Amino acid sequence: MSKKTSKLVLEKLRGAASAVVSEIQKGKNPSIDIPLRTLANVKWNEKRSIIEMGKATQERYFFNVAMAKKFMQTFLVAEECQKLLGSEKTASLRDLFYMAKRSIGGMQENTFEEQVESDEIIEDLEVGVNALREELHLKADKRGSLVGDLIFTDKGDTIDGRRMGSGGWAIPSIVEPEVVEFKRCDAKFVLLVEKAASWDRLNEDKFWQKHHCILLTGEGQPPRGVRRLLYRFVNELKLPLYVFVDNDPWGYYIYSVIKQGSINLAYESVRMAVPQARFLGLSSFDRERFGLGKEVIIKLNDQDISRAKQIMGYPWFQKKEWQREIQKMLKEGVKMELQALSSKGISFVSEEYLPRKIRDKDFLD
Amino acid sequence: MSKKTSKLVLEKLRGAASAVVSEIQKGKNPSIDIPLRTLANVKWNEKRSIIEMGKATQERYFFNVAMAKKFMQTFLVAEECQKLLGSEKTASLRDLFYMAKRSIGGMQENTFEEQVESDEIIEDLEVGVNALREELHLKADKRGSLVGDLIFTDKGDTIDGRRMGSGGWAIPSIVEPEVVEFKRCDAKFVLLVEKAASWDRLNEDKFWQKHHCILLTGEGQPPRGVRRLLYRFVNELKLPLYVFVDNDPWGYYIYSVIKQGSINLAYESVRMAVPQARFLGLSSFDRERFGLGKEVIIKLNDQDISRAKQIMGYPWFQKKEWQREIQKMLKEGVKMELQALSSKGISFVSEEYLPRKIRDKDFLD
Repeated sequence: MSKKTSKLVLEKLRGAASAVVSEIQKGKNPSIDIPLRTLANVKWNEKRSIIEMGKATQERYFFNVAMAKKFMQTFLVAEECQKLLGSEKTASLRDLFYMAKRSIGGMQENTFEEQVESDEIIEDLEVGVNALREELHLKADKRGSLVGDLIFTDKGDTIDGRRMGSGGWAIPSIVEPEVVEFKRCDAKFVLLVEKAASWDRLNEDKFWQKHHCILLTGEGQPPRGVRRLLYRFVNELKLPLYVFVDNDPWGYYIYSVIKQGSINLAYESVRMAVPQARFLGLSSFDRERFGLGKEVIIKLNDQDISRAKQIMGYPWFQKKEWQREIQKMLKEGVKMELQALSSKGISFVSEEYLPRKIRDKDFLD
Repeated sequence: MSKKTSKLVLEKLRGAASAVVSEIQKGKNPSIDIPLRTLANVKWNEKRSIIEMGKATQERYFFNVAMAKKFMQTFLVAEECQKLLGSEKTASLRDLFYMAKRSIGGMQENTFEEQVESDEIIEDLEVGVNALREELHLKADKRGSLVGDLIFTDKGDTIDGRRMGSGGWAIPSIVEPEVVEFKRCDAKFVLLVEKAASWDRLNEDKFWQKHHCILLTGEGQPPRGVRRLLYRFVNELKLPLYVFVDNDPWGYYIYSVIKQGSINLAYESVRMAVPQARFLGLSSFDRERFGLGKEVIIKLNDQDISRAKQIMGYPWFQKKEWQREIQKMLKEGVKMELQALSSKGISFVSEEYLPRKIRDKDFLD
C-alpha cells in the first residue's frame, strides 16, 4: 500500500479516536457512530444496479453494559490496524484475531474468544471509517489465477500476463493500485471462468492470445482479490467483462454477486460490484443451441430447485430474459457443468462455444 | 508434455491394447492384468521409508459378467488418453468423465454414470501401464503458489521466482520436466507452508530472499502438482525440504503424506513421496520454547484426539521423538495454528521463530 493511502486511512482512524478522547475530556459518555449492517438497512438501488447499504447508524457507547465490550474491541482492532499501517505490513483476519486476543488480567475472559467477533468489528471499522479492509491492511485468503494480454506490476515486479506458462499469476488478496499497477493492456475484454479446470483448458489453447483477453478464475465464488481486480479492469481499463459459470443456481449466484454485490457485504458494493458484467453461459438454452447430448445433464435436486426459485424472486433478476432463463432450468429440471462441453471434444469450449457466444453477442445482461 | 514422454506412454497404451487384440485373434477370452490397489496389497517399506504397493495383481476378463463393464470402461478411458496424448492436450478428471460418458444405444445405461467410476479406471491404468496420471495427460485441480530463489520455465515462458510480487506463480497441476524446467537455483532449502496466510506473511517479509529458499504453499493438504514439485526439488536439485504446518493431527498427517505417501495412492509413493522431508513445526513443545501465551491454544476435540492416537500407531511414526511429540499434544490436550505466532508480533514467524528453528536444527525427521 502506498504511503499516501496509508496516511489517509491512518488519519481516519486517528480522527475517530480523537473524537472519543475529546468526549472523555468533556466528561461525556464516549461513543462512536457505526452504520447499521442489518438486512433492514440494505437496499436495491435500481438506478445504479447495485445492492447498497442505507443510511441508518447506531451509536456505540462506552458506559453501557451491552456495548462496553464491543467498544473496547473496536479500539483494540483499530490499534492493531494502526500498527500494520505504520509498519507497512498486512495481516490475515485470523492473524489479526490472534494479535488482538489477550487475557484480561485476573479474569477467565479474553478480549476476543472467537474470530467471528473480531471479523464483525473489522466490518464495523470498514463502514465506520469508510475504508475497505484491504486499506486497513487486512486480507482474506487468496485464490485464483490470471493470464492474458496485460502487463502490470505487483509490488514493483513486472508481471507479463502473456508469459506466465501453464500456471499463471496467483492472484493476491490485496490488488489495490498501490500494489498492482496496470502498465500495458492489449486485451479487448475480460473473461472470468468459475472452474479452474476450464481456465486451464482455455489457457492451454491460448484462448487469451487468439481473442485478446484477460483470463481469470476465482475457483468457485471469486474471492475479494479477484472481485476488486474485475472492478478495476472494468472501471480503469474500460474493458467489457464476461462471466462464464456452471449452468446451475450457484452459477447464477456467482454472476449476481460479481454484478450487484451481496446482501451480507452490501456496504462494499460501491467498490466491489460491477454492474457492467455480462452472463455468457452456460445458459439453460445452450444444450439445444449447441446440440449437447442427454448424457451430460444432471437432475436438479431439491436444494437446487428452491435456490433457483429464490433467485428468480430477487429484484435484480426481474428482466424478462433472466426470468426465461431460470424458468427454462426449472421446467427442464436439469443443470450442467462447464466440463459438460468436453463431451463435444476437449477444445470445443475454446474453438466453438465461446467464439460463437461472443460473436453473436449471446449473453444475458 | 514432450513428444518423447508422450510417445513412450502411447506405446505402453498400445502395447496393452495389442495384447488384447492378439488374444481375441487366438480365440481366447481377452484379459488385462491390473495390479491390486487394495489395503492388503499396501506395505510399509521401512528401508525406503515409503508406503508402497505390493506385487498382487488381478486378471480382468472380458467374458465375465462381473468384469465386462470395467473391461469396456478401461478401453474407453485408454482411448481418450490416447487422443489427449496425440493432440498434446490435457484434461481434468471431470472432463475425461464427460469425454468417455455416452449412452449405450437403445439402453437406459451409460458407459459411466458417476465420475468415481472413471477415476477408478484411471488409477487402474496408471498402475497397469506404470505411468503417472500426469503422463496420461490427466490433471487434478491446481492449487498453491510459489516464490523464491529459483528461475525456471513453464511451457517455455521464463518464470523468475524472485520477481513474482505479492501473488507468486500459481502452481499448475502438471509440473513434469517437460512442462517445468529448472534453469537456475540459488536456494539452499525448500519451505512448504500449510497456510496461504503464513506464506503471504513470509513473502511480504521477503523471507525467501534473506534465507535463500523456495517458498511454497499447497493451501492445506498439498495437491499433486505441489507434491511432484517438492519431489523434484529434493531429487533433482538436492535441496533439503522443511514442512511447516499447524500443530494438530491434520498437520502431522500433511507432513506424513509428503514424506511417506498415502495408503490410498500407495502405488504412486515411488514418484511422489519425499522421505527426506523434515518437520519444522509447529511442535507441541513450541509453546513453552517460544513463550506463547495460553490465549492462543485451542482445546483438542474428540476427533482430534482419536486422530492423534491413530497417527501415533502408524509404523512411520514410531521414532521416539515422534512418540514424544504426539504424546505431548495428547497430554496437554491442546492444538495451535500457524497464525498463533502472530500473537508475538506480526513478523515473529519470519524474524524469530523460523530462523531459530533452522539455526538450531530443531526439526523432527
